[in-house]
Amino acid sequence: MCRFLLYKSNSPILLADLLTRPAHSIIMQSFNCKLRIDMRRPMNGDGFGIGWYDEPRTKGCIFTSTLPAWSNLNLQRLAEKIKSALVFAHVRATTGETATSESNCHPWQFGNLMWMHNGNIAGFDSIKRRLQNSLREDIYLSIQGTTDSENAFALFLNMLEDPLNRAEFSHNELKQAMLQTIAQLNEWLDEAGVKEMSVMNFAVTDGQTVVCTRYITSSENEGASLFYSSGSEFKSDADSGQYRMIKANKREDVVVVASEPLTYERSDWMVIPTNTLLVITPKLNVHLYPILDKYWNPNRGRHVL
Amino acid sequence: MCRFLLYKSNSPILLADLLTRPAHSIIMQSFNCKLRIDMRRPMNGDGFGIGWYDEPRTKGCIFTSTLPAWSNLNLQRLAEKIKSALVFAHVRATTGETATSESNCHPWQFGNLMWMHNGNIAGFDSIKRRLQNSLREDIYLSIQGTTDSENAFALFLNMLEDPLNRAEFSHNELKQAMLQTIAQLNEWLDEAGVKEMSVMNFAVTDGQTVVCTRYITSSENEGASLFYSSGSEFKSDADSGQYRMIKANKREDVVVVASEPLTYERSDWMVIPTNTLLVITPKLNVHLYPILDKYWNPNRGRHVL
Amino acid sequence: MCRFLLYKSNSPILLADLLTRPAHSIIMQSFNCKLRIDMRRPMNGDGFGIGWYDEPRTKGCIFTSTLPAWSNLNLQRLAEKIKSALVFAHVRATTGETATSESNCHPWQFGNLMWMHNGNIAGFDSIKRRLQNSLREDIYLSIQGTTDSENAFALFLNMLEDPLNRAEFSHNELKQAMLQTIAQLNEWLDEAGVKEMSVMNFAVTDGQTVVCTRYITSSENEGASLFYSSGSEFKSDADSGQYRMIKANKREDVVVVASEPLTYERSDWMVIPTNTLLVITPKLNVHLYPILDKYWNPNRGRHVL
Amino acid sequence: MCRFLLYKSNSPILLADLLTRPAHSIIMQSFNCKLRIDMRRPMNGDGFGIGWYDEPRTKGCIFTSTLPAWSNLNLQRLAEKIKSALVFAHVRATTGETATSESNCHPWQFGNLMWMHNGNIAGFDSIKRRLQNSLREDIYLSIQGTTDSENAFALFLNMLEDPLNRAEFSHNELKQAMLQTIAQLNEWLDEAGVKEMSVMNFAVTDGQTVVCTRYITSSENEGASLFYSSGSEFKSDADSGQYRMIKANKREDVVVVASEPLTYERSDWMVIPTNTLLVITPKLNVHLYPILDKYWNPNRGRHVL
Repeated sequence: MCRFLLYKSNSPILLADLLTRPAHSIIMQSFNCKLRIDMRRPMNGDGFGIGWYDEPRTKGCIFTSTLPAWSNLNLQRLAEKIKSALVFAHVRATTGETATSESNCHPWQFGNLMWMHNGNIAGFDSIKRRLQNSLREDIYLSIQGTTDSENAFALFLNMLEDPLNRAEFSHNELKQAMLQTIAQLNEWLDEAGVKEMSVMNFAVTDGQTVVCTRYITSSENEGASLFYSSGSEFKSDADSGQYRMIKANKREDVVVVASEPLTYERSDWMVIPTNTLLVITPKLNVHLYPILDKYWNPNRGRHVL
Repeated sequence: MCRFLLYKSNSPILLADLLTRPAHSIIMQSFNCKLRIDMRRPMNGDGFGIGWYDEPRTKGCIFTSTLPAWSNLNLQRLAEKIKSALVFAHVRATTGETATSESNCHPWQFGNLMWMHNGNIAGFDSIKRRLQNSLREDIYLSIQGTTDSENAFALFLNMLEDPLNRAEFSHNELKQAMLQTIAQLNEWLDEAGVKEMSVMNFAVTDGQTVVCTRYITSSENEGASLFYSSGSEFKSDADSGQYRMIKANKREDVVVVASEPLTYERSDWMVIPTNTLLVITPKLNVHLYPILDKYWNPNRGRHVL
Repeated sequence: MCRFLLYKSNSPILLADLLTRPAHSIIMQSFNCKLRIDMRRPMNGDGFGIGWYDEPRTKGCIFTSTLPAWSNLNLQRLAEKIKSALVFAHVRATTGETATSESNCHPWQFGNLMWMHNGNIAGFDSIKRRLQNSLREDIYLSIQGTTDSENAFALFLNMLEDPLNRAEFSHNELKQAMLQTIAQLNEWLDEAGVKEMSVMNFAVTDGQTVVCTRYITSSENEGASLFYSSGSEFKSDADSGQYRMIKANKREDVVVVASEPLTYERSDWMVIPTNTLLVITPKLNVHLYPILDKYWNPNRGRHVL
Repeated sequence: MCRFLLYKSNSPILLADLLTRPAHSIIMQSFNCKLRIDMRRPMNGDGFGIGWYDEPRTKGCIFTSTLPAWSNLNLQRLAEKIKSALVFAHVRATTGETATSESNCHPWQFGNLMWMHNGNIAGFDSIKRRLQNSLREDIYLSIQGTTDSENAFALFLNMLEDPLNRAEFSHNELKQAMLQTIAQLNEWLDEAGVKEMSVMNFAVTDGQTVVCTRYITSSENEGASLFYSSGSEFKSDADSGQYRMIKANKREDVVVVASEPLTYERSDWMVIPTNTLLVITPKLNVHLYPILDKYWNPNRGRHVL
């Protein structure tokens, strides 16, 4: 089980303030984490990746490494220099099925789109060939690694028109493609007779809109944890040195979605309910939509796992 | 363009005597090489791999790295300790289409079989899906990387019965599977309308028999260079310190096949003619067979490229 | 805080049976460990190293990597092939002061000697120059990295006559050099006014004798944990599949020393008391000696931390 | 022998336009280079580093890797995003004495200062201890690797007052410290009786002024090649796609110093004479000073090696 973080704001943040300096940053979480549902691998040392955009309507940049994030000098130095208003970050723990290689590090890019995944598609091998055969040629040939996550991205791309060359997408288009991707995976998994639960916390952006999900193929169990927070600024408190989400006014200038809260102030963080899709619009409005398929269960426990 | 080496003998050689100590070893060749046909990448610094067997009828071992071979301390230290009577070695230069990752380093293994490739399959993208769709499920799912070379291995495996679990194969079986692999690739490349030449210097072993090819999809051009040498021992000369193939008696106790001669004594090395398949039997007999397809041309220049 | 393991036996063990297959192997421990005294870095993902000897009176071999041990394919493949009767293994967590680089991975070699360290020398910077100035030139120039651990090895070497060229050392010689090393470090640390505790779990071998310590510069606190176990064979139980130390007869054919027990059978493991030096002779006799300096305290709690 | 490049301009350049896109960029040079004086290692695949400043009077950023520059995906992606008006770049070939590790990759930083070296200090081992003993404590402890180059930087830092905390330095101060560094190295090398030639092409900057040298400890031989070019813009020609130094007006807005010309237009490039110190002022004035020590020889051949 991996974990991810995404950040979107009206003005750029120094990556260090998001990734390396906070005591409870995603990198520190990769040492010690309590909110997991898969205990096979007790932490996340099998590579990481960060992606960010510097200007709207352009391709983002990605930095990935198979070395652990916490001892990566290049990451630490770059994070002190790079500023961005839209950041994806991912730390990875292999589940044993796929190799640790840079080709298997999240996020992935295709045109202006960027994708990452926390979770795993159970029984993926039983649908891999079918998935790959459904893809348009350019998308099929773009696959560089062997993970379920990258293949799910390919399937998502296949739901869009001309994903390689378009600068931006409407948020409805991205939302629909995400729902179709999950529906298609479910259909194939059902037909293959896969009974194990799949965890599909996906996140995608075109550099302007962000769509992400907290999803599990179960109507009973909670999915892998996912939280969000919004406010006017994410920064360290002058007194305590602790990072906080500042809520100085009614405006929302920052939205963060993360597998675990990034600050010790739990009241800053709202749980995204299991089997929910979240949209962050270019203007930073946040919308949550229940995913109303056969796994939808309004009575599922709302408590944090 | 990459280069490879394979060594088979009656008694184990220290890997250092084959790989790291000779002045003209495959690793030193990776710095500076004159016998190429692809000048896009003037040397081989994009990873390497060595494979070896310690006992007959067992799975071999592989050591791969994306760091250059010449500065790899682990390789240098291991080579001073490991002895083997059957060694594959490969240094890689990407041709730009595929990433430098350990998943893309030769050789690959499947059961007791080991495979490497020097060359490239032109227009591979245009036949990739068809190739993968022809594969049995376990072979399809075993593919870890994105190279034409690993996919060609998968196609070869698909020509064999139960390649994962059998301890050994007759040399005729391996030879036929190799010829079928080349024929199948050619058929698909033709149907896809690929006109560029493909270079298919393949090598495969089950730990006992070795089959390799020097092959190009052209009846005019020479293929990528390939040489072989045999004798009673491959060792350094007491006087000069130079490595030599010793021919102390009529017996052949050592056979080496390599993209370039490993010693400065050119008379030690015989050119393997273009479009030839070579078999080394478990008892170290060497047989050369012309590959009699439409690219066979007995009048092709016999000179070394 | 790191952890280490050393294994010595009368007959070679497959490295996989020691390092990668046991459910509670040193590599699995590197995920999740409970017996630490330094909680700054909750696990060990900053590189690892293994060292082993194949023949007595020869230089050992080392394999190190800055990638985490648990996802290192080369380690997994080599461990299935290499057998040795004397193995050192180390997983590393940087304490922030020194870089993650192969030069900083344990164990280190000098001639036939091999060295590793679990712990840290507090205030090492304040004695580094003095230590280096005390070294003979060849030893000073052999230092490749920046760790306190490697510098402590250099100091140890400096206590020996001709450590580079001698094939073996008496166990008394190694023991005395170890005690002198600790005494010298203590003297300099005192003179530099360092008050923080240093943890000096050192292990050294010449390929035949092993000397190691559980030591802390405190008369109150327990040192970093260290255990040993001996028996006739270390292997997996046919029924449970769990690794066990078999005690089939009175003979001791295997001795293992480790930062944490390698098996779930706690009765197999004896605690090495804090501030004790342990010697394993070439014939596998084990001797424990209290280190009778100013930190010696016979009434220190004997309980496991 | 390595090679380096430094770039300083009035307005930022995209790193890709300097490092990865030009057909004769430093990275492509690392494949194939003709202007060397040390043929032991025929190319540069033992790591690389780039350093750049984004704002004046701040610490620069560094990205280093032990993977070859030409196959480094992170470098290629970052170069498409990062812009800077002051860039250092270095590709490294080990000379066998020191390990390939990130600690040994150029450039190094200390406060706002950045340093790189093309060449080697012959017999460095014989002066290493003396050099390290001459250093102030903070500088001595900052050394992370084992190279002559990093130690020479330490010696240079030792010539300056408070190099860690000052934002900037006068160009005279940097020039004098460079000359003192070379003089001190020469004095110690002489006293140690070293007869082999040392090559000291050093470059240093505080983010505003650049000082570099082409220097050899010989009055007969030419030093390692070094060239410079200046103009109004370094960019690709619209017609040919070739990179050129544009000289649109009399103003000098760009200065490049490089081990080899970066463009095919040799008339763009001036040879820096052997044993010369070059200063680029914050306002982009370029001054050349002969280094008038015992190795100065006005009649040394001015031809390019």
